[in-house]
Amino acid sequence: MGSIITLLTDFGTRDGYVGQMKGVMLGINPHAQLVDIAHDLTPFSILEASLVLESAAQHFPDSTIHLVVVDPGVGGERRAIAARCGGQFFVCPDNGLLWPYLSEKGSWEIRDFAGCRFIGRSPQPTFHGRDIFALVAAHLSIGFEFNKLGQLIDDPVKMEIPVPKTRPWGLEGEIIHIDAFGNAMTNIELDSLNRNISRINVGGLYLTGVKNYYSEVDEGAPLALINSFGRLEIGINQGRADEALNLYKGAEVSVQWD
Amino acid sequence: MGSIITLLTDFGTRDGYVGQMKGVMLGINPHAQLVDIAHDLTPFSILEASLVLESAAQHFPDSTIHLVVVDPGVGGERRAIAARCGGQFFVCPDNGLLWPYLSEKGSWEIRDFAGCRFIGRSPQPTFHGRDIFALVAAHLSIGFEFNKLGQLIDDPVKMEIPVPKTRPWGLEGEIIHIDAFGNAMTNIELDSLNRNISRINVGGLYLTGVKNYYSEVDEGAPLALINSFGRLEIGINQGRADEALNLYKGAEVSVQWD
Amino acid sequence: MGSIITLLTDFGTRDGYVGQMKGVMLGINPHAQLVDIAHDLTPFSILEASLVLESAAQHFPDSTIHLVVVDPGVGGERRAIAARCGGQFFVCPDNGLLWPYLSEKGSWEIRDFAGCRFIGRSPQPTFHGRDIFALVAAHLSIGFEFNKLGQLIDDPVKMEIPVPKTRPWGLEGEIIHIDAFGNAMTNIELDSLNRNISRINVGGLYLTGVKNYYSEVDEGAPLALINSFGRLEIGINQGRADEALNLYKGAEVSVQWD
Repeated sequence: MGSIITLLTDFGTRDGYVGQMKGVMLGINPHAQLVDIAHDLTPFSILEASLVLESAAQHFPDSTIHLVVVDPGVGGERRAIAARCGGQFFVCPDNGLLWPYLSEKGSWEIRDFAGCRFIGRSPQPTFHGRDIFALVAAHLSIGFEFNKLGQLIDDPVKMEIPVPKTRPWGLEGEIIHIDAFGNAMTNIELDSLNRNISRINVGGLYLTGVKNYYSEVDEGAPLALINSFGRLEIGINQGRADEALNLYKGAEVSVQWD
Repeated sequence: MGSIITLLTDFGTRDGYVGQMKGVMLGINPHAQLVDIAHDLTPFSILEASLVLESAAQHFPDSTIHLVVVDPGVGGERRAIAARCGGQFFVCPDNGLLWPYLSEKGSWEIRDFAGCRFIGRSPQPTFHGRDIFALVAAHLSIGFEFNKLGQLIDDPVKMEIPVPKTRPWGLEGEIIHIDAFGNAMTNIELDSLNRNISRINVGGLYLTGVKNYYSEVDEGAPLALINSFGRLEIGINQGRADEALNLYKGAEVSVQWD
Repeated sequence: MGSIITLLTDFGTRDGYVGQMKGVMLGINPHAQLVDIAHDLTPFSILEASLVLESAAQHFPDSTIHLVVVDPGVGGERRAIAARCGGQFFVCPDNGLLWPYLSEKGSWEIRDFAGCRFIGRSPQPTFHGRDIFALVAAHLSIGFEFNKLGQLIDDPVKMEIPVPKTRPWGLEGEIIHIDAFGNAMTNIELDSLNRNISRINVGGLYLTGVKNYYSEVDEGAPLALINSFGRLEIGINQGRADEALNLYKGAEVSVQWD
C-alpha cells in the first residue's frame, strides 16, 4: 500500500486545522507523503468537494489515499466511510461528496468504519477530520487492511451533480462553480455537445462557437470553451467572467442547436 | 533527531517568502520533510500564532522541529530563540508566542542563538525567517546539537492569553480568535465550565446550553460549543457567526451560572 | 538529477488545479519532493512570477526543478520551454517570466520541448500546466536528459522589469509589487542607491533616510527600507502601506540625492 495521502478540505489555511491533521498522520506514519489538493473550498460545499476530487484523483497513482473533509454534519449522525475505487482509497464523511466519482467509475467497495479499533472513544465532536478521518487515512498508509476497517455498506449517500435539461431547441444548464480566475463552469459536459451549436446564452449575452483556449479572443472579451474538467465554461480572456458578466452559482447557461 | 520541520507564519502565500525559507532549509537538508501548518495568520498576531501552535504541535511526533515566524520586531532588539519542550523543538523570535505552550507543558529549555556559528554576518534585517530561523531549524534537522546553539536563557518574553474574569454570577470572557468559518473562539476554557450554566451572553443574544456539534441546531441557528481547542466557541450551523452576530476579537462573551 | 520540484503558479488554492499537477508528477515520480513556492500570485502577472521566482530559486539546492505556470497565453502560439541555468532547471511558458532570472545569471541553455515524446497528442488547451509542463518537470526528475527535451532556442521572450529613470536630481522609479503585508516594493535596486539620499517622495509624502527594519519607526509610521528582494520598499511598521498611503502598482516613487 502506497504512502501518498492527499488532503482536500474546506478548512482554509489560517487556523492550523490542516496542520493538526498532518501532525496526527505523521505521528502514525512519519514517512507518509502528504499532498495538499486544496483547502480553500467554499465552506460546507459538498458539490465543490466532489468536483475538485473527481478532477484531481484520476491523476494520482494507484494506492493513493485521498482524505476529503468537507463535513457540515460533523459530530451528528452521518456515517464515516472509506472507499476503495479504481485502485485508490478515499476517506470521508458519507454525505454524498464521493458519489459522483464512484458512479463515474462504476465499481467500488465502501466500508463504514464506525467503531474501528484505532479510533479513540471520544473524538472531538467538531473535528472528526483530525480525530477520525486522519487516523483512518494514516493507518491505511501503514498497511492496515481496508477489509478490516468496518462493515461493508451498499447505500452511500448519493449527491448528484445537477443535470442540464434537454429542450427541443437545446440544453438548459447552470453554473455550478466559479474558479479562482473568475471562470464560470457549467454542468454541461462535453459529450452532451454532440450537435452543431448555434449560440450559447448566458445572462443577456450571446456567444457563438466554443473556443479551445482563452487567447483565441481579444483580451477582455468573453468566450465559451470546454475546460479541463470536460465541462462548458464561460470565461474572459485575462479577466474575471464572474464580475464582468455578473455570473454566480445557479445562474442559467443554455446552448441552442443549429 | 527527526527530520520533520513544520512552518507556521503570517507570510501569506502570494510572495514566495515561505518558498524562500523552504529553499534555504532544503539546501541544508534535502531530506527534510517540510510541513505547512498555516501561513495566513493575521499579520503580526502573536496571540494567533500561539493559539495555532499550541493546537497543532501536540499532534506531531517526537523530535519534530517547529519553525514559527510571526515577527513584528524583526531586525530590532528582540532575541531569536530555540526551545526544547515535550520532546520537540521550537525556533522562533522571542516575542511571547511560545509562552502559552511552554507554560502549559511546564518544563522547557530555551537557548538564545545570537551569534550561532552558522548564521551569516549580515542577515537581511527584514527577513530573519529566511536568514536566521530557517538556518537554525535546518541545522537541528541534520543533527546539530541543541545544546550548542547558544546560551541558555530563563527569561523568555511572556505573552499571556487574556484570562476570563471571575464574577459572583459567572465568567466574563472575550473573543480571542475568529476562524476561517467565522466561528468565534473565546478565552473561556472547558475546565473552567465546572458548574451548571444558566445562559451564555454574546452581544444581545442569549444562548442556553453548550452543544457538542454544529448540526445539533438548525441550519443558520447560533450555538455555543466546546471547540477543538478546548475553548468555548460561538458558531452558527453552516453559517458565519462573525458576520451574522457582529462578533469580533475582543468582544465580550459571558457565562452565567445556574 | 535531484528530485525536488518546486511549484509556482497563479492557480490559487480553491480549485485543485495545483493538486492535479501534483498527481500527474507523483504518477511519474512517486518519490519527487514537491515544494509549493506560491500559488496566490496575481492572476496572469508575469512580472510578479518573475520577481517571486528570482527571489526564491537562488535559495534552492543544485538540480532543483522549478515548475512555473503563469500562462495567460495557454493553448495559443507561445512556446513551452525548459531552461538550465545556474545548476537548476526551469519549466515554464515562454512568455518572459524567466528572463529577469536568466539575464541576471548571464549563462543559460533553453530548449523548446514542443513535440517532446512523452507529451500526449491532445493536451487540454486550457491546462498545459498539467498536460505539458508537469510532465516535463516530472521526467526531468527521474533522469530524462535535458538535452533530449527538444531543440535549443536562443530567442526566449524577454520581459524586462521596468527600470527607474535617471534624473539630474535623482531616480524616478515606480511600485512594481504590493506584498501580503501591504508593503510596496519599487523597481529601485540597492546598488543604484550609491549616493547620499536627501529624501524619498511617494504620493504626497516625504521620507528621509533608508531604514534597516520596520520597528526603527513607531508603530503605524511610514518608512523606506531595502527589502529582502534587494529593492527599495515603502512600508508601515505593523501596518499596511498600500491602504494607508494609497499605493498601487505603477505609482511613482522617487529618490532625491543630497
